[in-house]
Amino acid sequence: MPSSRVTQADVARHAGVSRTTVSFVLSGREGMRISGEARQRILGAAQELGYRPNLTAQSLRTRKTYTIGLVSDSVASTHYAGEMIRGALEAALEKDHLLYFAETGDDPAVEEKLLQGMLDRQVDGMIHAAMSTRRSRPAGQSGGHRTVLLNCLDESGEFASVVPDEFAAGEQAVRLLLEAGHRDGIHVVGGHHFTRGKPEGVHAGHERMRGIEAATAAAGVELAGVVECDWSEPEHGYRATRSLLGADPAPTALICCNDRLAFGAYQALRDAGLDIPADLSVVSFDDSELASWLRPALTSIALPHHELGRRAVSLLLSDDLRPAVHRIPMPVRRRESISSPRR
Amino acid sequence: MPSSRVTQADVARHAGVSRTTVSFVLSGREGMRISGEARQRILGAAQELGYRPNLTAQSLRTRKTYTIGLVSDSVASTHYAGEMIRGALEAALEKDHLLYFAETGDDPAVEEKLLQGMLDRQVDGMIHAAMSTRRSRPAGQSGGHRTVLLNCLDESGEFASVVPDEFAAGEQAVRLLLEAGHRDGIHVVGGHHFTRGKPEGVHAGHERMRGIEAATAAAGVELAGVVECDWSEPEHGYRATRSLLGADPAPTALICCNDRLAFGAYQALRDAGLDIPADLSVVSFDDSELASWLRPALTSIALPHHELGRRAVSLLLSDDLRPAVHRIPMPVRRRESISSPRR
Repeated sequence: MPSSRVTQADVARHAGVSRTTVSFVLSGREGMRISGEARQRILGAAQELGYRPNLTAQSLRTRKTYTIGLVSDSVASTHYAGEMIRGALEAALEKDHLLYFAETGDDPAVEEKLLQGMLDRQVDGMIHAAMSTRRSRPAGQSGGHRTVLLNCLDESGEFASVVPDEFAAGEQAVRLLLEAGHRDGIHVVGGHHFTRGKPEGVHAGHERMRGIEAATAAAGVELAGVVECDWSEPEHGYRATRSLLGADPAPTALICCNDRLAFGAYQALRDAGLDIPADLSVVSFDDSELASWLRPALTSIALPHHELGRRAVSLLLSDDLRPAVHRIPMPVRRRESISSPRR
Repeated sequence: MPSSRVTQADVARHAGVSRTTVSFVLSGREGMRISGEARQRILGAAQELGYRPNLTAQSLRTRKTYTIGLVSDSVASTHYAGEMIRGALEAALEKDHLLYFAETGDDPAVEEKLLQGMLDRQVDGMIHAAMSTRRSRPAGQSGGHRTVLLNCLDESGEFASVVPDEFAAGEQAVRLLLEAGHRDGIHVVGGHHFTRGKPEGVHAGHERMRGIEAATAAAGVELAGVVECDWSEPEHGYRATRSLLGADPAPTALICCNDRLAFGAYQALRDAGLDIPADLSVVSFDDSELASWLRPALTSIALPHHELGRRAVSLLLSDDLRPAVHRIPMPVRRRESISSPRR
């Protein structure tokens, strides 16, 4: 690739001036008297030959590379987080920055290697992203690199982070059901994601549950039940929903902790001969494509992936990198899965 | 970030030797006599201070940056192609390369800008990726950059490309049904993706249909029907399936052109009170997560995204960049949606 590159020497030859003159004109530096005519000739020659500045050389002088490193655990391969990357790419492009992108697969040795690789290439800043919101300490953070955490919280209190407002989303899910007239029959499918393999649950689970409990308490309503289960497959939502169908008080509404669980709940309710929303209302979180594909279409509270990505990059390129948690609102996508309870 | 960087000058000061000596030792160059003791002292100082080579400076000398540019139309935001990026990242990491990643949103001006940005940063090679397989000519291709096309074909015949073997997958779908005993009642849902907005269809549609027709012809079987529709939403599969339920000969099996259409077909068959696979068998393409989530789990012929990504990077970093089409096999994921026909 380098062999085909037009150099400043080529431009100088073409314009019939010295290499130094070309360098001054093309880098826009001051301090040398160059005639308007020579300047025009040089710019004309540069354009004609298709000259492009060598940013690698330039960055040695300016100490800016206009690049950002984005390291994630497994964002690229997680279907619902692609929008996060798209948001980051958009914001970077608007400011003429390019993005190095890499995945660690949650392996600290790989993370260290990737981080070092990006720092060796003099990135102007780093974004550490996580697939699902969690507490995290970026590896190898020393020496005050510009850093923003994306979709994860900072254990050390040193960094700015951008996360979805899961607590408010939990409150919102309850409010949607209360507005429709539900009170005693509200069950939660998923809960904190407490499972044998993950006894501490997941961050989104804790926050959503806190919001759900705050909103029911504020309305003087008691949750009818919470079935804790793994959030990763519809199968778990299917089983959890089957387990609660005989509950007392009888369920009138389900809050599913994500759309996959809601998909499983739909399958279980259909198998039980129950109609959504006439017999049971369902509300969910994430607003993945599944939500609009289900029949009836599922009301879901959206993960603001695109906005998360944009904000992380904007923050990184801003002058304000104080350690603070930036919470992005999760918008409600109202569809057809909620109605008034039968009783 | 640069302010915190340890330089060779720091190492020289710490080791009590000249900057030139440090430079020779750390870059592994020959041609200067340096004592073993001094060499050890320098390496020790470099390690102690956490010195990392300045790859930006190094790359000016070696003309290699160990970076690859990956530009796609909208891969990142397309749920089922994340694995392609993961495959590319893996292969790049194995060879110590980092990846610039960017999306064009199918805008030629953005594509040109991104491409130029990567070339300005002296990438060692470029991968042009497309979300869905199609014919494509990368923008701004001149001057013999190292280039591989990923999931798209090359109109110009200048480049190596890596694509899924869609034709063989079409044949395979038919064979699965023939093996189960289906003959006259095989319908296709989706077809070439001929729609009002896309009268020319999509590449995968043409190839899969060619394969389907080749395999039926080879077995002396005639397709019972093809419903052309948009592939993007289950809703289209739902309507297409409803439209063919009264067909003659009566359908015994559906070949759905992707999992979304199969999802819609499942919904339509359920609404019609039909059982899968007892009343109708269903086979699909792509093997997205949906396929394993559906009840009964859907047999689907997988897009080999991960392998596509790996191969594109391996090819780019290999010595063989001859213009050729590398077709990657699409593996069958057998599940529970195919059985013998009732009649």
